[in-house]
Formats: sequence, structure tokens, C-alpha cells
Amino acid sequence: MSDRSGDVARRETGALISSDKVEGTAVYDPAGNSLGSIHSVMIGKTDGKVAYAVLSFGGFLGIGTDYYPIPWAQLRYDTAQHGYVALLTKEQLEGAPRYETAPDWGTRNAGWQADVDRYYRGPAFPSA
Amino acid sequence: MSDRSGDVARRETGALISSDKVEGTAVYDPAGNSLGSIHSVMIGKTDGKVAYAVLSFGGFLGIGTDYYPIPWAQLRYDTAQHGYVALLTKEQLEGAPRYETAPDWGTRNAGWQADVDRYYRGPAFPSA
Repeated sequence: MSDRSGDVARRETGALISSDKVEGTAVYDPAGNSLGSIHSVMIGKTDGKVAYAVLSFGGFLGIGTDYYPIPWAQLRYDTAQHGYVALLTKEQLEGAPRYETAPDWGTRNAGWQADVDRYYRGPAFPSA
Repeated sequence: MSDRSGDVARRETGALISSDKVEGTAVYDPAGNSLGSIHSVMIGKTDGKVAYAVLSFGGFLGIGTDYYPIPWAQLRYDTAQHGYVALLTKEQLEGAPRYETAPDWGTRNAGWQADVDRYYRGPAFPSA
């Protein structure tokens, strides 16, 4: 539990995980409830570091699904659940910034990064 | 030229680039010849840093294509070519470690990381 070096990673190599393995991997809350799955990760251009996971959540058969960018630091890989555990509840996620699914969601919502950072540092996360 | 903050990135946000935008992006040698495209990136589990790009190169209509992991530091984004420029020639790439395309290529070739690091630090790259 609480380790990024899970089965997903082991399918690749000990210290590294492939981006196409991260994409599509399930995400759970700490109680084990499904929060959705990872659509993609956002990589810093200058430092090459993953800064956010874009969670796909909500809707039915893809209709009404939204993108929820969450700080990468909120995620831990859980070998038992074969997925990531996010350090937030479903209620906290439902209150988080969300964006309509579209290839250009990032540019269409220029302020998303500031909004996401503000939310995950804010009163909804008193322990942060 | 020689900047990761190109058009691909701008479609997302100023400082970040989405993994699903990096995947499939063309890669060129410094002379502008096509070297293939990026299949995926390998992310460090503990530091969350992109360590390698896995280049898809060779073959015809996907048949005979191989995966060439190359150090992420070898790549720069080129706004003019709408793709990445790798700091290596086609001949250097042809001599580089390659692996048959398969979802589990990483575990099937446990020593790939050491082999790749050795090659890109070796005599084929005298300026490295």
C-alpha cells in the first residue's frame, strides 16, 4: 500500500513506469471506492517532471465524463488494488475543478493550473 | 528550435505538456530526417521524472517496427518541425539498443536501461 512501485510498474521495470501503462489505470479513494481512471499525465516541459494526473470521472459510457486534474503528489500506487489511491474522498473530488473532456481542454481553460493548485491547498484539505 | 515549449505543448498549457500529446509526436535527426515517433515515455516512480522516450522506428505499416528507448535529455522540441529533434543521427540510432514491440518489452529485456545508458554515454557519442 501507499507505494508507486506496484504491479503496473513491475510490468515495465523496477524504477520506471511507462506513460501508456499509467493511462487507463484505476484510481480509488482511501476507502477503496472507485474515483475513475487516469486519462493522461501533465509533464513539466523544462524539468520533465509529472506535475498532474488528469482523472477521468463521472458520466456513463463516456457521456458526461469530466477531466479532473489532480496533483501527482496526491497519488500512491496500491499493489493490492492494482491501481492508484488518491489522498482525497469522492466528495472532495466532486468539489474539485473539472473540465469538459476535449483534446484542447488545457488551452480552453487557461487558468486550470492555478485553480487546481488553489483547491488542493485550500480548506477542503485541512491536513495539506 | 531546441526548445521543448513548442506547438505541441502550447495546445495544452505554457509550462506543461500532456502525455497523450507527446505520444505519437514525430522525432527528427538534427538534419531534419525522420527518425520515427514517440511511442511512450518512461517515468521515474519515485521522482516522477521522465527518464526515457521510447521511439518507434523502422518497419513498414507497423511490421518490423522496433522500440528504441533514448534518454529524454537527447530530445528538444522544434516548433518549426512540429516535433522533437533528437541529438543523434539515423546511423547512431540504428546502432542503438532496440527491442521488439510488445507491451511487456521492458520486463522481457530486464537490462535495457543499463544497455541504453551505456550506449548513449559510449564512443558513438564522443561529445557526450
